[in-house]
Amino acid sequence: MKIQGRDYRTIWPTADGVEVIDQTRLPHRFETVRLSTMEDAASAIRTMIVRGAPLIGATAAYGLALAVRKDASDDALDRAHDALLATRPTAVNLRWALARVRDAVRNLPREVRADAAWREAAAICGEDVETCRKIGEYGLGIFRAAAAKKNGRTLNVLTHCNAGWLACVDWGTALAPIYMAHDAGLPIQVWVDETRPRNQGASLTAFELGSHGVPHAIVADNAGGHLMQEGKVDLAIVGTDRVTANGDVANKIGTYLKALAAKDNDVPFYVGLPSSTIDWTLKQGADIPIEERSQTEVTQMTGRLADGTVATVEIVPPGSRAANPAFDVTPARLVTAFITERGICPASEEGLKGLFPEARKK
Amino acid sequence: MKIQGRDYRTIWPTADGVEVIDQTRLPHRFETVRLSTMEDAASAIRTMIVRGAPLIGATAAYGLALAVRKDASDDALDRAHDALLATRPTAVNLRWALARVRDAVRNLPREVRADAAWREAAAICGEDVETCRKIGEYGLGIFRAAAAKKNGRTLNVLTHCNAGWLACVDWGTALAPIYMAHDAGLPIQVWVDETRPRNQGASLTAFELGSHGVPHAIVADNAGGHLMQEGKVDLAIVGTDRVTANGDVANKIGTYLKALAAKDNDVPFYVGLPSSTIDWTLKQGADIPIEERSQTEVTQMTGRLADGTVATVEIVPPGSRAANPAFDVTPARLVTAFITERGICPASEEGLKGLFPEARKK
Repeated sequence: MKIQGRDYRTIWPTADGVEVIDQTRLPHRFETVRLSTMEDAASAIRTMIVRGAPLIGATAAYGLALAVRKDASDDALDRAHDALLATRPTAVNLRWALARVRDAVRNLPREVRADAAWREAAAICGEDVETCRKIGEYGLGIFRAAAAKKNGRTLNVLTHCNAGWLACVDWGTALAPIYMAHDAGLPIQVWVDETRPRNQGASLTAFELGSHGVPHAIVADNAGGHLMQEGKVDLAIVGTDRVTANGDVANKIGTYLKALAAKDNDVPFYVGLPSSTIDWTLKQGADIPIEERSQTEVTQMTGRLADGTVATVEIVPPGSRAANPAFDVTPARLVTAFITERGICPASEEGLKGLFPEARKK
Repeated sequence: MKIQGRDYRTIWPTADGVEVIDQTRLPHRFETVRLSTMEDAASAIRTMIVRGAPLIGATAAYGLALAVRKDASDDALDRAHDALLATRPTAVNLRWALARVRDAVRNLPREVRADAAWREAAAICGEDVETCRKIGEYGLGIFRAAAAKKNGRTLNVLTHCNAGWLACVDWGTALAPIYMAHDAGLPIQVWVDETRPRNQGASLTAFELGSHGVPHAIVADNAGGHLMQEGKVDLAIVGTDRVTANGDVANKIGTYLKALAAKDNDVPFYVGLPSSTIDWTLKQGADIPIEERSQTEVTQMTGRLADGTVATVEIVPPGSRAANPAFDVTPARLVTAFITERGICPASEEGLKGLFPEARKK
């Protein structure tokens, strides 16, 4: 996607390693960071210079490839694998990407391992882009149909949190159809939920959309229901952290409230997801443990002071505590459809298994 | 209610006028301001040192009484009335309180006007306290019944925005039952919705509850649905800016989303209101115009820096715009009951007219 007219991915190869966008600085600064060693890559994941499951996986894959460049022995491979795996606690993509690079080189002669590891990391990135592109194309069909009903008026889309290209390598999941619709010339405007407490909408999604030139307006998370009541939302689309076998959707806290409002106002509510997000081992959303995160995410806010310096302020009374559940579960009954890299399906076990018949065997 | 162990109202008489809490400083500073002239009172309303419809009315009433003390002529009375009326655009209570003081003195001899105006202003305050106290007592009955089902476990109550004593003279509307339940020794804990974009929950409600010693936790506005899904909310209670004849409820943006979640999870959803909030002239909520407020309420946030100074930071990317609808309408079908100074009634035209039969004639 574009930043100031120039095409970017979130990670790209350089002469001596890879370069990434420093996402801890967004939306206040746009800076890139070079990762030349495995240690650089591990640190970038740990400090959240890179974030988003697909991008974490891609960065770890390149990190392992950088380690193999330096020392292609079995021992070094295993040590680098383990070091990178320890950077984040629960990222499934991280584990998968590291295993894939290790397995790709393990049985090769040492002298070809570095090139093979690099090729595998690049393939992981390429496949992620392709997965997101397909989600975008299937979603574009839905957007075109919705736009056709508007008789040339702007299509208003609401999204929550950040399921955009900054979390992936390119395109994003929920945002991929938005970029494709915009690039295809559909008149589109995006309501960007601020997404308290971490403000991924107001910071990352707004930055992405603004940088690519997609018209958008940031709204408080409280506003979406009213906008739907007023007929100002034609469809809602979000990403997901985990979908259970019955089609329940775990996503950023507050997603459930928007899905309820969409149902109450007959607004279609879509979830864009790569199939890697489906957890066939869990029957229903109630089985998903919900992470409770730090109070300071609620009690503090970071932004730019009038002189441009970035500062953090405390926004609650001294002594008040906060609670901070990070995700909620949207029941499948509130979801209009899933948009995956294999097509569109109902949010149900039958719907999912229709697109992913191989899961029937599991 | 109490602040650091001492009983306060939001406005109280002094030797030469009245004193109020400077609400523009909350929750970061607790300071009071003396209002000795009509101009002081007008300025306090205009700069939002005082806010909340009942408190604005009370302050204006005292402001008019201060004007009459200085000059009891008809001309001065009318000029002070008009100056105070112009301080805020749409406050119905402001108009009502000013008319009441003017009408109380208009036909009196000049030499007794000052005392009569002061008594009328005091009466307006006293009646507001009494109205809120009754809402609190009727609500307490509901809270006691809910607590009885908990077998001694803590009663968890969710509220949105600030419908507390800081908006009134004492007690508050939606918060009055909470204070009474706490004072009566019921084990109670309050989930305080942050209430973006102006953060009335995280600042004013949390300050009120903390100062009075009521256990509470601030949550992002996104969290309420999840808390209800988890069984962590026993009842929700909010205030309202305007109730239409059919029982639809206009309140701070985001109220509708919580009402939807309450319905979906069988959590009772109450609205506490003085009957002055009922607008018998409007048939339904869709007839209420919704104010669109400044973008900066969404794009900026104010709080304390590490050194204690209060600062405002910009939290969105440069160039991103925001939309800021200030209220939404919760349909009567989502409201369990209204709690008024005359008792509890269903959220419907029949329910309201059962408690307020005089409205049948209108």
